[in-house]
Amino acid sequence: MKAVVYTGKDTISVEERPKPSLLESTDAIVKVQHTTICGTDLHILQGHVQTCTPGRILGHEGVGIIESLGTGVTRFSVGQPVLISCITSCGSCNFCRKRMPSQCTSGGWILGNTIDGTQAEYVRIPHASFSLHALPNGLDPKVAVTLSDVLPTAYECGILNGQIQPGSTVAIIGTGPIGLMALQMARNLFGPSMTAVIGRGQPRLDTAKEMGADHAISVLRGQADAVTAALAVTNKHGFDVVIEAVGSTDSFELAQALVGPGGTIASLGVFGTPCDLHLEDLWHRNICIRTRLVDACTTPDLLKIVESGKISPHFLVSHNFSFDQIHKAYETFQTPSKYGSLKVVISMSEGQPANPKL
Amino acid sequence: MKAVVYTGKDTISVEERPKPSLLESTDAIVKVQHTTICGTDLHILQGHVQTCTPGRILGHEGVGIIESLGTGVTRFSVGQPVLISCITSCGSCNFCRKRMPSQCTSGGWILGNTIDGTQAEYVRIPHASFSLHALPNGLDPKVAVTLSDVLPTAYECGILNGQIQPGSTVAIIGTGPIGLMALQMARNLFGPSMTAVIGRGQPRLDTAKEMGADHAISVLRGQADAVTAALAVTNKHGFDVVIEAVGSTDSFELAQALVGPGGTIASLGVFGTPCDLHLEDLWHRNICIRTRLVDACTTPDLLKIVESGKISPHFLVSHNFSFDQIHKAYETFQTPSKYGSLKVVISMSEGQPANPKL
Amino acid sequence: MKAVVYTGKDTISVEERPKPSLLESTDAIVKVQHTTICGTDLHILQGHVQTCTPGRILGHEGVGIIESLGTGVTRFSVGQPVLISCITSCGSCNFCRKRMPSQCTSGGWILGNTIDGTQAEYVRIPHASFSLHALPNGLDPKVAVTLSDVLPTAYECGILNGQIQPGSTVAIIGTGPIGLMALQMARNLFGPSMTAVIGRGQPRLDTAKEMGADHAISVLRGQADAVTAALAVTNKHGFDVVIEAVGSTDSFELAQALVGPGGTIASLGVFGTPCDLHLEDLWHRNICIRTRLVDACTTPDLLKIVESGKISPHFLVSHNFSFDQIHKAYETFQTPSKYGSLKVVISMSEGQPANPKL
Amino acid sequence: MKAVVYTGKDTISVEERPKPSLLESTDAIVKVQHTTICGTDLHILQGHVQTCTPGRILGHEGVGIIESLGTGVTRFSVGQPVLISCITSCGSCNFCRKRMPSQCTSGGWILGNTIDGTQAEYVRIPHASFSLHALPNGLDPKVAVTLSDVLPTAYECGILNGQIQPGSTVAIIGTGPIGLMALQMARNLFGPSMTAVIGRGQPRLDTAKEMGADHAISVLRGQADAVTAALAVTNKHGFDVVIEAVGSTDSFELAQALVGPGGTIASLGVFGTPCDLHLEDLWHRNICIRTRLVDACTTPDLLKIVESGKISPHFLVSHNFSFDQIHKAYETFQTPSKYGSLKVVISMSEGQPANPKL
Repeated sequence: MKAVVYTGKDTISVEERPKPSLLESTDAIVKVQHTTICGTDLHILQGHVQTCTPGRILGHEGVGIIESLGTGVTRFSVGQPVLISCITSCGSCNFCRKRMPSQCTSGGWILGNTIDGTQAEYVRIPHASFSLHALPNGLDPKVAVTLSDVLPTAYECGILNGQIQPGSTVAIIGTGPIGLMALQMARNLFGPSMTAVIGRGQPRLDTAKEMGADHAISVLRGQADAVTAALAVTNKHGFDVVIEAVGSTDSFELAQALVGPGGTIASLGVFGTPCDLHLEDLWHRNICIRTRLVDACTTPDLLKIVESGKISPHFLVSHNFSFDQIHKAYETFQTPSKYGSLKVVISMSEGQPANPKL
Repeated sequence: MKAVVYTGKDTISVEERPKPSLLESTDAIVKVQHTTICGTDLHILQGHVQTCTPGRILGHEGVGIIESLGTGVTRFSVGQPVLISCITSCGSCNFCRKRMPSQCTSGGWILGNTIDGTQAEYVRIPHASFSLHALPNGLDPKVAVTLSDVLPTAYECGILNGQIQPGSTVAIIGTGPIGLMALQMARNLFGPSMTAVIGRGQPRLDTAKEMGADHAISVLRGQADAVTAALAVTNKHGFDVVIEAVGSTDSFELAQALVGPGGTIASLGVFGTPCDLHLEDLWHRNICIRTRLVDACTTPDLLKIVESGKISPHFLVSHNFSFDQIHKAYETFQTPSKYGSLKVVISMSEGQPANPKL
Repeated sequence: MKAVVYTGKDTISVEERPKPSLLESTDAIVKVQHTTICGTDLHILQGHVQTCTPGRILGHEGVGIIESLGTGVTRFSVGQPVLISCITSCGSCNFCRKRMPSQCTSGGWILGNTIDGTQAEYVRIPHASFSLHALPNGLDPKVAVTLSDVLPTAYECGILNGQIQPGSTVAIIGTGPIGLMALQMARNLFGPSMTAVIGRGQPRLDTAKEMGADHAISVLRGQADAVTAALAVTNKHGFDVVIEAVGSTDSFELAQALVGPGGTIASLGVFGTPCDLHLEDLWHRNICIRTRLVDACTTPDLLKIVESGKISPHFLVSHNFSFDQIHKAYETFQTPSKYGSLKVVISMSEGQPANPKL
Repeated sequence: MKAVVYTGKDTISVEERPKPSLLESTDAIVKVQHTTICGTDLHILQGHVQTCTPGRILGHEGVGIIESLGTGVTRFSVGQPVLISCITSCGSCNFCRKRMPSQCTSGGWILGNTIDGTQAEYVRIPHASFSLHALPNGLDPKVAVTLSDVLPTAYECGILNGQIQPGSTVAIIGTGPIGLMALQMARNLFGPSMTAVIGRGQPRLDTAKEMGADHAISVLRGQADAVTAALAVTNKHGFDVVIEAVGSTDSFELAQALVGPGGTIASLGVFGTPCDLHLEDLWHRNICIRTRLVDACTTPDLLKIVESGKISPHFLVSHNFSFDQIHKAYETFQTPSKYGSLKVVISMSEGQPANPKL
């Protein structure tokens, strides 16, 4: 089979690999139909993810068809369309039982990291009963790919960790797929009295306004100006909830400057270095900071919410490529300022549309 | 001054009464601008409220202007427009400190019940610092009257007690002001995957549909049919949340038939008799039943949310009368099937519009 | 093998049955070492449990040794000592994922109810990965039997459903194994400012006092006197938490009379008929009533807590019989007033101690 | 009257000052009976608290007798013994209504900071209805002084912010009054499966062991060794709850090294500089960090809990001095390693015992 292989810093190659086979009775083999690229894949390419070594098939997102099942998997049947969770969950360790499979003792984020992933024609999914979800009819499989990682990440690490209450003021830092999805979720699933999005490129800030953000504030004129502008819309009280969806030391500084007394910072970033924590300002302000690797434990809820129409992730799929356009797909995803890309879906089947835009 | 006095079963009269004066240093006297009639006032007229004796000035809702202030009230100034809370709160007893002023040891629901109320030109408000709220500019005072009782009741006793989660299925029993307001709040402040409203009159069920209810089910063909129809839209699972906003033994039966495993019943009714609790069905279904006399502890939040536009109570004010039309106002409120009435606002000032409809 | 079979109203018999075998890849066969009798087994004998038909092997509690494993069970190994949960859990349905396996779509309470149970030499356990727990070294297996059902029931349905806060006043109605265990848990795992136990027999009330209850109140002189006495110790405020661990209409009446404003009733009973719910008193008192079939989702926590010594269930095992004394065991358990019995443990192995008391 | 005045860096003096008088209708004047010294007072002496300027009467803790009352204070009467809260609360601003008076718009920590404090014969208490508590009979007034600040700080900032669950593993960093009180509260009001105290001086570590800590670990041999030793007692999992009760960059580093996946750090320190936040380790570990200036909103609960005997703060009062020994009192409190001091109570009345030890 064909697979996207991480071959060392900044390089991938498409290689011919043997089709995976069942290793454990709890495994499934899934024939991948659609996959996508995550910001974390770019971190791997930059050499930041030590656990992922050259030779690894990348990818932890996808939808597909069950090709074969271990004898211990009774929830699914061969031929069934499924969503692949970015988090592999045994279901029975103490972390999984407490709805924290990100820390699963034999799972967690392993696909495309410590075992081969989904950017291939076939993928082996360990603990299939917990790591796959039946794909509802009527949900476009290309859009469903966003439920592997983007939606649960925006929801669990951003929205739930932020603990939005009716009437909360909410700041979202970052206008990538996670930031924009968090904006939609905050507005459609909760009742904030005000939302402000803080970002870089004007096109994305315009998108945020079109999606209903009350305020869209650019950091391009400098962080201090952005802080002043953002605090101004709270009458200098600060925000009840700050969702930090960039993951840089600068944006974490910004989050701390924006959080109000009694407020919460939901930190979604992937960090390689420490940040300054301004306890000299925050020790007496009753604030809360939460980190989280996505658990994907809310995926069944999110599937139901997407089906109900309360949230609509279609806008996230900005591009669609066939598998033989994989290098173009990576380039497109890596350069949003040039291509306006959010998520690029890669489809494995033949007969792709000439126009790769969905 | 003129006041609406409860004179015995089924009767009120407009009487001339002395203007109230400050009794405690924590009192305020408010010149009433607009007041309204509550379902509880009708319970008083029916003789169901033993604590309210003939001679009492009715009313626990209103907006007005501060006429005079006790020396201990430092939050407000004379001449300031204020919202009168239906719940009087001392702020400092153990119940008030735990955000439960409905049980305040020197307050609670006393206005128009154990002390004279708001259906008069002036009213004395004990514990004014906690029982009044500054009225925001830009909020129509006639609409603001709904924040005295209807909005906090729908929110605290219905929505918060129901514990709606994103993706919940929600049934609302009753299409009066509380039921419809709860529908709007559920949809605008939370993210239910489905809402169903169960009611009696078709015009109100149509209103519920227009307001976004996914299903509107009539009980007129019989309770059993309504249960079957309502459970059908949940694939027989039952609802995650049932908001019972009627307050009859029949509707409480209905609520128990509709709640699904792990679900919650928020009971908003005013009851004079026991109900059957079907523990033979419910003991193993992990359900929760909550009652609540409104605490009005969320009124500052609700004022903020109304200002933000996330909820809009304007639709509740179906009629507006001048004070000399008080008997017509009571008749209109008591006969919604004839007049299509929701809340009737009574305005004290002269120069009312000829057309009493807002 | 030998098994205790329900043969019709009020009768059991010890019968020779074929040893169970693996039916699904997710099954385990467990060689039972110790089992016990539950109040629910007595309900079956009284013909109250329609789902349990004559011919069924009884029992849903036990510890034993894994005899054989389906190919899909990778968490355990043959020969390993395990605790059998009273609740069978698939782990992956929506209820199990939300920590509510009592409602599991292919599990729940099925052992000794809709499939053969643990009062036998061997038992087949479906969904073994989630329905068995490794037995810690150093925990007496006879005592461990109480972790199958009594401890999670007292904890989940009583303690957690009661939502005890530091400083809460707690009333426990009932002095059986669940009531006494709930008392120990309330005192050792939470910080109530006062506990009162309401029961029938003086020996058990004395036991409650020895276990640290601040007050032990008898209902033998009449329910009204008991209510007066219990409310007196709260200065007539009522209790913050009422744990109803009897399950009769009388005791549910008592619970309603004892709950204070803002309080919670945790209802643990198994009911065959409706009860009166006194909404005429409770509608304005902000109370919460919770029911729950035990989920046994906290069993890993309870094993850890028992190991730490914070709670000690040893006292629950009042008697120990060998399997050939099963009729004596049932009689002893059914007549606590005569034998002082709490839980009777039945051991399958030969060489029982001459003295059946542990 | 006599008062302890902050006269500049590192100096206090006892000065004659005019007796305070009522300024607002909501004020009370309290005749101080007992007061004490807080770690924050030492921060003031070091010049770290910019809001406190020379000339200020120090102190925010105390018990006394109401000398006079503003006309707006109806909860108390002249001559009543009261506890003075370290936090002044108006009760009615949005922060106070949400149980966060630390951020009160006209209160917060002002006593002995921005207005004159309690280390004097008399003190003016603004917003007396919310900032004083009736002193229960039977509670030693000298011990009651610990309820002004130490107990609510340990409880709110440590215990509640730490969110201990039954079975949690809890690390407490620091063996001062707050750390030791948090240890007692964790053990008596919650059900941790294990507690470990990390501190400096061996006598205090011995005290922690005597108070029931499962492990007492010294940092004197180096931070790395302490981390290794502390993690070892969790089998390297890390702690579910870390209560950081020192407030140095070193101890905040330690807290981050000790917290396990899904765990919480309750940060109690008063910080003057930023700390490193190790997001490179913590971003994927689902942790929560909470800061809090004490709100003292739980003081009524704590009074009830102390009365019930569930917690016992008597051990905190290590020394008792008369007011004319104030310099000795400061020295004793500042040098715990020499005097073994925890809290030093200063009594205003004449006729002190010759032996200053309680």
